[in-house]
Amino acid sequence: MLRNRLNRGGGRTQRPFSSPATWQGSAKIRSSGWCTKAAASDAPAVPIKAVAEARTVVGKITEPTGRTDKGLIDTQPPRGTRDFFPEDMRLRNWLFGEFAAVSTAFGFEQFDAPVLESEELFVRKAGEEITDQLYNFEDKGQRRVALRPELTPSLARLVLQRGRTLPLPAKWFAIGQCWRYERMTRGRRREHYQWNMDIVGVAGVEAEAELLAAIVTFFERVGLSKDDVGVKVSSRKVLQSVLTQYGVPPESFARVCIIVDKLDKLPRDKVEEELRVLGVPPATIDGVLSALSIRSLEELSRLLGPDSEAVADLTRLFQLAEGYGYKDWLVFDPSVVRGLAYYTGIVFEGFDREGKLRAICGGGRYDRLLGAFGGDNAPMAGFGFGDAVIVELLKEKGKLPAPPHRVDDVVVPLDTALRPAASGIASRLRRAGRSVDLVLENKKMKWAFKHAEKLNASRLVLVGASEWERGKVVVKDLAKFHQEEVPVEDLI
Amino acid sequence: MLRNRLNRGGGRTQRPFSSPATWQGSAKIRSSGWCTKAAASDAPAVPIKAVAEARTVVGKITEPTGRTDKGLIDTQPPRGTRDFFPEDMRLRNWLFGEFAAVSTAFGFEQFDAPVLESEELFVRKAGEEITDQLYNFEDKGQRRVALRPELTPSLARLVLQRGRTLPLPAKWFAIGQCWRYERMTRGRRREHYQWNMDIVGVAGVEAEAELLAAIVTFFERVGLSKDDVGVKVSSRKVLQSVLTQYGVPPESFARVCIIVDKLDKLPRDKVEEELRVLGVPPATIDGVLSALSIRSLEELSRLLGPDSEAVADLTRLFQLAEGYGYKDWLVFDPSVVRGLAYYTGIVFEGFDREGKLRAICGGGRYDRLLGAFGGDNAPMAGFGFGDAVIVELLKEKGKLPAPPHRVDDVVVPLDTALRPAASGIASRLRRAGRSVDLVLENKKMKWAFKHAEKLNASRLVLVGASEWERGKVVVKDLAKFHQEEVPVEDLI
Repeated sequence: MLRNRLNRGGGRTQRPFSSPATWQGSAKIRSSGWCTKAAASDAPAVPIKAVAEARTVVGKITEPTGRTDKGLIDTQPPRGTRDFFPEDMRLRNWLFGEFAAVSTAFGFEQFDAPVLESEELFVRKAGEEITDQLYNFEDKGQRRVALRPELTPSLARLVLQRGRTLPLPAKWFAIGQCWRYERMTRGRRREHYQWNMDIVGVAGVEAEAELLAAIVTFFERVGLSKDDVGVKVSSRKVLQSVLTQYGVPPESFARVCIIVDKLDKLPRDKVEEELRVLGVPPATIDGVLSALSIRSLEELSRLLGPDSEAVADLTRLFQLAEGYGYKDWLVFDPSVVRGLAYYTGIVFEGFDREGKLRAICGGGRYDRLLGAFGGDNAPMAGFGFGDAVIVELLKEKGKLPAPPHRVDDVVVPLDTALRPAASGIASRLRRAGRSVDLVLENKKMKWAFKHAEKLNASRLVLVGASEWERGKVVVKDLAKFHQEEVPVEDLI
Repeated sequence: MLRNRLNRGGGRTQRPFSSPATWQGSAKIRSSGWCTKAAASDAPAVPIKAVAEARTVVGKITEPTGRTDKGLIDTQPPRGTRDFFPEDMRLRNWLFGEFAAVSTAFGFEQFDAPVLESEELFVRKAGEEITDQLYNFEDKGQRRVALRPELTPSLARLVLQRGRTLPLPAKWFAIGQCWRYERMTRGRRREHYQWNMDIVGVAGVEAEAELLAAIVTFFERVGLSKDDVGVKVSSRKVLQSVLTQYGVPPESFARVCIIVDKLDKLPRDKVEEELRVLGVPPATIDGVLSALSIRSLEELSRLLGPDSEAVADLTRLFQLAEGYGYKDWLVFDPSVVRGLAYYTGIVFEGFDREGKLRAICGGGRYDRLLGAFGGDNAPMAGFGFGDAVIVELLKEKGKLPAPPHRVDDVVVPLDTALRPAASGIASRLRRAGRSVDLVLENKKMKWAFKHAEKLNASRLVLVGASEWERGKVVVKDLAKFHQEEVPVEDLI
């Protein structure tokens, strides 16, 4: 789920979607604004020339929306969205594969829900950016619908739908596309993919500890160390206790969190002003901001007293982290509150140690979301992990793989009459589990060799008339530069 | 790509989306109309009671759209869409895995494009159902956009975007969600997933033969034989030749195809009337309909003459099919024209031999689509294969798998103090590549056993105080009903 707009390929800035670290796809070419530089400098996979040509035909550089008479259609995807050419798709499949592998290692089950949901699922009044930027519209049946901005509300809907028939605890994950809409700005992404893991039905911080273990496991799998990244951890109960000490009514809590979350992208006096507008007295504001500067559990304990739930939860969480072996990846930081209204306890966010990027992921406990939907509450915790910042980080660290396209065999009929024979050879090899590119046209041998090389093929299988008459084909082993005639039945 | 609305979880009826063979998900519960019976009779995985309860709370049985005051939100997905609970998702992952495995065996590369595209990409004037039912709307920036009804136009856009930098032939596949909107009807699906394979740059029927080979390979992989299913094959050039013989202008060709495609769902006189309204003379109508009743290439050759391209293409295609070894799966049937405007040559559609279901898949050659988008034409051929009819068919044949959820180990701390230790055990096992469900709460042993059984675990790892002190845990092998103390370092 999207715990916070900060995950959304954006985050610790005011422009969560405008990550320069898009896939290698073409969206960034379209970007204007602060994204343009990155687009121009690191886009080897994008056919800039082709794009420019298309633009010229359409005649609109910054805002190509339609087709001129007899001209080429706009070949770019809608603004803020991405195409996935095969090289982009291989990277996406690699990343999603890592998400899924970690989830499976933790025994989680995958679910999905429609990318288009009823708008009511996302309407909240706490001033979150995520709900302010809802990609919503009215369908032709006059129903208010929205392209989902996050996955958590859909998860909650599914949990409510199953009701008491759902065995608890439930450990579910999802990888889905999420959308947002901003009217006035440019060069910012309107969609991203997000990995979510959620645990339903576990009241203790053991749930959060397990979720954090999954995040750290993912980091390790993709080659990141605790010197590269960490996870800041706190609890909403810290802020809540301070607000309660100052007599701020509980109804204001979610709104205060949303405002306080802006601390690292707005100047402090702007945040203070927003809190004043909300009616928070100056002394309370000072108290809150000073509590958020605490950096040790001992100090927190002195502030909140010996019976503090926040201190107990965090202490326990760090004990568990030590048991798992990932304690050194965690940093206690009460300034982390996350920007979603529904969190109630532990909150956390992944960050890069160099502090260059926005939050890598974020999550926490949300024990009252089902109640907000009119159901019975159940303890729930989870995280959202977007596909943009992690790719940016891996690229920067030189850890981003470039999975190649490859096949086992390239089969080439040497003349037209031999195509049915070559088809039979291809069938035989595929049946044996090999991936086979069958050449479907008359091509020169030079082309076939280059083609096989481009496809990283291990063998080139040539079907020629004289060998075929003897029930044989010529097999070139492209690694060993070795060639021999092989009887068809020995091919595999 | 969606070659025809017939793929869309619907097809050879007027209600392409209203397949009773949805996933096991909950969409069908919501269905009204002709879908209801199937929903009531074969929905074991759906918590009917839970749904009914939710309905009662909302108080709207047939049209739950909103939330009553303090009542439960509507827990159903938007009308015509599906949730994928874990059991549905496992089936979906299995099916998509088969799609991907076949594509990979044929050396195809995967691509994707946004589910939301510019409306202009799908606007065609030939009277196709697919464009008449476009799920389109205006975004907040006053741009006309649409949830894609098919994948082919996006593929064409990507090909045009790459332009001359795209090496040909390109062999691409995609698995994506497609949408449609109908205003007035109920109980019909508005989304489905579709597998597409396309070849760009091959002018000969070798491309179609390779695509048909992939479809047959898929059928074989999922356990279907040529007695269960087949593929009807024809060429648009048959109809075109007949129309040319009768002097019908080429501009009318696409429209005539769309009308003729309705032959097996509308009464013949209704089709004749539509052709008359289009201005086709009665003698031509008779000629067309009689040509479509031909069932052998010899007869076709007599009708169209010795130089007929249609006859040459089809003859060559059947020769190649024999080479591949799937000739017996094919049936020549000129009444197959498919319902999409852009086909120009060979067309085909998968069917069940019992004739109970709509088309399983469909495709063909579309050499002039790029030109219609204002670009240079390139030879292209491909098919679309929806996720609805195939699931229905496999269910009927008893071939639909029910992939279970399973983990390798369930790790259970026997008291609260041992949770950090159990977490460390889980980490160790996961690092070794095992999938581990870690029990996060205090549970009774009886629960743990049932839980491990439900998760199809092979081992139960119990972390108890006395064993832990000796560096050991108790491992229960759940297949062998055998239990022993194992030193932690020997666990894997």
